[in-house]
Amino acid sequence: MPELRKDPIVGRWVIISTERSQRPTDLKTNEPKKEDPDAKPKFCPFDYGNEHITPPEVLAYRKDGNPNTQGWSLRVVPNKFPALMIEGELNRRGKGVYDMLSGVGAHEVIIETPDHNATLTTISDIQFQDVLWSYRDRIMDLKKDKRFRYILIFKNHGFKAGASLEHSHSQLIALPIIPKAVMEELNGSKEYYDYKERCLYCDIVAQEIAEQKRVVMENEDFITICPFAPRFPFEMWILPKRHDAHFEDATKHEISNLGSLFQTSLKKLDKALGDPPYNFMLHTSPVVMPDLPYYHWHIEITPRVTRLAGFERGSGFYINPTAPEVSAQFLRDIKL
Amino acid sequence: MPELRKDPIVGRWVIISTERSQRPTDLKTNEPKKEDPDAKPKFCPFDYGNEHITPPEVLAYRKDGNPNTQGWSLRVVPNKFPALMIEGELNRRGKGVYDMLSGVGAHEVIIETPDHNATLTTISDIQFQDVLWSYRDRIMDLKKDKRFRYILIFKNHGFKAGASLEHSHSQLIALPIIPKAVMEELNGSKEYYDYKERCLYCDIVAQEIAEQKRVVMENEDFITICPFAPRFPFEMWILPKRHDAHFEDATKHEISNLGSLFQTSLKKLDKALGDPPYNFMLHTSPVVMPDLPYYHWHIEITPRVTRLAGFERGSGFYINPTAPEVSAQFLRDIKL
Repeated sequence: MPELRKDPIVGRWVIISTERSQRPTDLKTNEPKKEDPDAKPKFCPFDYGNEHITPPEVLAYRKDGNPNTQGWSLRVVPNKFPALMIEGELNRRGKGVYDMLSGVGAHEVIIETPDHNATLTTISDIQFQDVLWSYRDRIMDLKKDKRFRYILIFKNHGFKAGASLEHSHSQLIALPIIPKAVMEELNGSKEYYDYKERCLYCDIVAQEIAEQKRVVMENEDFITICPFAPRFPFEMWILPKRHDAHFEDATKHEISNLGSLFQTSLKKLDKALGDPPYNFMLHTSPVVMPDLPYYHWHIEITPRVTRLAGFERGSGFYINPTAPEVSAQFLRDIKL
Repeated sequence: MPELRKDPIVGRWVIISTERSQRPTDLKTNEPKKEDPDAKPKFCPFDYGNEHITPPEVLAYRKDGNPNTQGWSLRVVPNKFPALMIEGELNRRGKGVYDMLSGVGAHEVIIETPDHNATLTTISDIQFQDVLWSYRDRIMDLKKDKRFRYILIFKNHGFKAGASLEHSHSQLIALPIIPKAVMEELNGSKEYYDYKERCLYCDIVAQEIAEQKRVVMENEDFITICPFAPRFPFEMWILPKRHDAHFEDATKHEISNLGSLFQTSLKKLDKALGDPPYNFMLHTSPVVMPDLPYYHWHIEITPRVTRLAGFERGSGFYINPTAPEVSAQFLRDIKL
């Protein structure tokens, strides 16, 4: 018998389907990392020597060299084809039932490594930590701009996951609005807090540690789980064990522990499914909000191993052929 | 300057991107309708003569012949690989912060035509109306089952849109819960009603008719628009002009007018983008609810012409390269 499960935060029901159940090995992909399977290797604006091709960097970690020249180990540049414009006033207006706002925002690219062929699972642990530090540095800087209410950090890995360049990179979008998915989490966790006077995410962490059925791995500060009501096979969430609303408040010690757990979780996913396309997204508090007692920052990793069945995007209702207990067990057992 | 627009019903913001703007002709697809581009033509369980392969029909329109034999023009059968099971008690239970429910529900397939190569845009207008009648007939029947709270009707057209068999069909899932996307529409439109004492959808229809900027076509009873804050290029919504919460309350006259407008809208989409993969979904009231003054049934058609950029599925935030005014104009101008 299939089971309907409800995500306790946003109230989304999913079907954990048994009739359609798939073993992890059925989901293995031979998806090449290449941006387009038919494309030839070509000029890459993120490689050494091409620094002048991108807009000037807004952040770089480098041992030597001048800005916008070689010698960097990580580089953040404005997106050359930004979805939003950094210059301009916020201009809220309405027409009848409709509301609109000028498209003001920042759209940046975090070039995670100068090595064209590296990925987040092949770079060093120090380099991986630097990626996390760059997220924090950019948040701290953009936070000062009072036009922005939310800073969205995410990664598309693989062509099928939406990556348009194969050179490993993450993206950042600073927005004058709060994205719907985050708003739903804020509302859902607030409702729980109003009733229980406890953080729902803290309760989830405690229950997962007690049950040990959906835990992929944990260390002193962080835990990786396959969530109870996952939308996708092998979906993983990484949560800090200590309550914290803002990612950027993490300590040096925590960033180090996050780096090792995050990278190991991605390595396990790679090995389990053969370098599948995936997306991850940092869900953290809106920058304008204080340290909320009910919201708890976390990272959601969603592999793309099934076609998104059509109705799912129109109904917000998901059929998932792999129970999270099965994927967690499989990932837990992977030896690296 | 790009523009941020807010969907007035569910509060979802989208970026209408100008930097990334694409003309409709850039979106043209040569996507074959075939289920898998590499597949050879093969045995189809929905063709004449194979009626014994599917589970026994729950509805058929036929001029002659016995049940589960040839002679039908439309046939509804249970899904052979159902996501939910029709037999069983609803069994609500919880464990700590989590809630679950036994996977009880109906999962049916509406085989829209016996012609293996036909599509919704090539069948006759009468046959198209019959598809709509079959939706209604199945809703009326399943409504009697008190375990179900929602009946979801949708179509995946094309392999990329999630279709697993190329023979033209729609699907129906009867659920003991209300899907999240519908719940959000119910909540959002109720909030507006509580404040304005008017139906938000009725106000949208009135404003669209007055402005004539996003109207694709209309007739006496229905209107097709490209919505103000669309997630996808060429997204279309079909709304009844008369306020009605339940699709199944449509009159014979309305079904006839819906059929002609719906089929023509799909034909325009086909011609505009070269038979693109698409999904549509009927959004109607939960069966258990009375005639709500604030909810207004409608159909949402979402073509799949762009890759779903990764972060969109994690943030609920969409970047759309085609303004709805542009797609509506383009569709309006298409001569069939």
